Amino acid sequence: MGYVEAGGYNRDMNYIDDRVVQHPDGDRQWPVEAGRYRLIGSRACPWAHRAIITRRLVGLDTGPEAGSDTGPEASTTGSPAPLSLGLCGPTHDWKSWTFDLDEDSVDPVLGVGRLRDCYLHRFADYPKGITVPALVEISSKAVVTNDFRTIVKDFATQWSPLHRPGAPDLYPVELRSEIDSMADINFRTVNNGVYRCGFAGDQGSYETAFAALFARLDELEEHLSTRRYLVGGQLTLADIYLFATLVRFDHVYHGHFKCNRNRIADMPNLWGYLRDLFQTPGFGDTVNFDQIKQHYYRVHTDINPTGIVAVGPDPATFYTPHDRERLGGTPFRNAAGDATAPAAPRPEDVRDGDEAGAFA
Amino acid sequence: MGYVEAGGYNRDMNYIDDRVVQHPDGDRQWPVEAGRYRLIGSRACPWAHRAIITRRLVGLDTGPEAGSDTGPEASTTGSPAPLSLGLCGPTHDWKSWTFDLDEDSVDPVLGVGRLRDCYLHRFADYPKGITVPALVEISSKAVVTNDFRTIVKDFATQWSPLHRPGAPDLYPVELRSEIDSMADINFRTVNNGVYRCGFAGDQGSYETAFAALFARLDELEEHLSTRRYLVGGQLTLADIYLFATLVRFDHVYHGHFKCNRNRIADMPNLWGYLRDLFQTPGFGDTVNFDQIKQHYYRVHTDINPTGIVAVGPDPATFYTPHDRERLGGTPFRNAAGDATAPAAPRPEDVRDGDEAGAFA
Repeated sequence: MGYVEAGGYNRDMNYIDDRVVQHPDGDRQWPVEAGRYRLIGSRACPWAHRAIITRRLVGLDTGPEAGSDTGPEASTTGSPAPLSLGLCGPTHDWKSWTFDLDEDSVDPVLGVGRLRDCYLHRFADYPKGITVPALVEISSKAVVTNDFRTIVKDFATQWSPLHRPGAPDLYPVELRSEIDSMADINFRTVNNGVYRCGFAGDQGSYETAFAALFARLDELEEHLSTRRYLVGGQLTLADIYLFATLVRFDHVYHGHFKCNRNRIADMPNLWGYLRDLFQTPGFGDTVNFDQIKQHYYRVHTDINPTGIVAVGPDPATFYTPHDRERLGGTPFRNAAGDATAPAAPRPEDVRDGDEAGAFA
Repeated sequence: MGYVEAGGYNRDMNYIDDRVVQHPDGDRQWPVEAGRYRLIGSRACPWAHRAIITRRLVGLDTGPEAGSDTGPEASTTGSPAPLSLGLCGPTHDWKSWTFDLDEDSVDPVLGVGRLRDCYLHRFADYPKGITVPALVEISSKAVVTNDFRTIVKDFATQWSPLHRPGAPDLYPVELRSEIDSMADINFRTVNNGVYRCGFAGDQGSYETAFAALFARLDELEEHLSTRRYLVGGQLTLADIYLFATLVRFDHVYHGHFKCNRNRIADMPNLWGYLRDLFQTPGFGDTVNFDQIKQHYYRVHTDINPTGIVAVGPDPATFYTPHDRERLGGTPFRNAAGDATAPAAPRPEDVRDGDEAGAFA
């Protein structure tokens, strides 16, 4: 899935590609089990964001005993989360993401300060980048997998015994081919496309990526003119994947990555679609604009040597009416026909500056 | 006029502050004289842009024998320009702006390749920055003055014997106090304010400059809701000064200088005002968006180390209707009541990529 071109940006696609599944087969597969693992993410990272949203939507934060119709206050009590969430701060040094948001800068469950420690617990000589999302086995503090592709799909499918009542089916069998195809082209042109713009090593690579990015956004603008969601008239993984990039676009990719033909806010259908998702439980309540900006502007010293973080734009526009319901479709669907929106996030999953506060 | 603050950006305000005037008094004053001087500018630089626009509006490019009612073709013939124009390319090294747009990379009138040579002809040990605009005496190839403040005011006033018929009064005596006051606050917050944002050495200095910039833009948005021009219902130097910054805003200051609360295109009155000026002869026909972008993105390697030039946004929006005539006022005014718009630029003053081509 990587790109190889002169001057172009190549995303490292070699992950610890173990999986957590219902029926493990072989030593690189681990069993789904409530309370055994901890998802480590960061509000900053779009790849971690996919996992965090999916966890919320299917209720791995509340579990099979939680009901969605018991109101937000219900989420503050009850059984522990089947899959708890650790959040690294927005910035990191060359070695590791760190738990600098937590008391004493240590993750309260894993007891480590640097995510790197969990990679070293797995492989003492781990030679590659320390990335989020990572699924960590709590007892061994070892990373089980950091493959964002399988983590998200497995949350939606393999982890179904731990889903909340009313969990939507985000990857329905009959839509998988269409979702995969949609996700694949969006990955190349948009999700990774913004990075190909921002990290291009020369003008030609940048302009190639820029052209592909906006050509695809134009296609999506057209696609979303008659559809509320990308595939099948319901929320699917394809929407989650695209959202994680779109929600960052005007705040960091437009300026910092030079994706500046226009903003998403200038494309009426994409902007309506983005606000519709943002205002859906599980999406906007997992966003932290300040941490997103801190991450990009401060970590990428090779393209922003001063580390100064741009102030604009104002996130308040994400809360404006979108009128996308007119296009039909139902956000939450599953085979049982009982799909509901998730309840509010648990207090322990909310950090200072999270937009969750604005939804409460 | 400089700023002194920790981490803030200080514009070097020490210029060769000789003047060219009608009645020279002392050895730092030079006589106004047709054909004696050459204005050296660059399409990239907003300070040079002020001088280039003013030269166009008062007709120092065509002179007292040119009539504005003889049509654009008249500008291709007739007497030499009272004040000719040399244009440096958009990029330069640490030593000097260069004439890389010209044949053999040499200015055809001065016969030099680097503007620095003209500074050294004036002072062999010239220790300061090589800047545009610069007025150069053609015979000695020596810089007479590079003080953009007096160059522009003197073009509008002292050079009046060489103005074209129908030249507007851009600095009417009865409006000078108001123009100076308007220009002063706009300089601090907007013209230089964008540089204070872009070149801030720390987050606090940036945020201070950012707040002052957008507070002032908000005031101007309000001011321009009931007035077509900044001062006195006619074009004045105050409009020229502001235009040079506004026309660059969405293309370079918004992203490259992190002035991203919003674009000018998002402020209806400022955006209408900007397009009104752009579509007025003497303004848009002196703009070259490509050179503006090449300059900022390639020269400032301290804030854009890759030198990659952002592709967006599309300048075509500058040609859309603005409907500002409804606010009254008359663009061109003078005491004689015979003020007209300037004719089209002379062919020798137009370079590849200039928007002048779009107006022809």
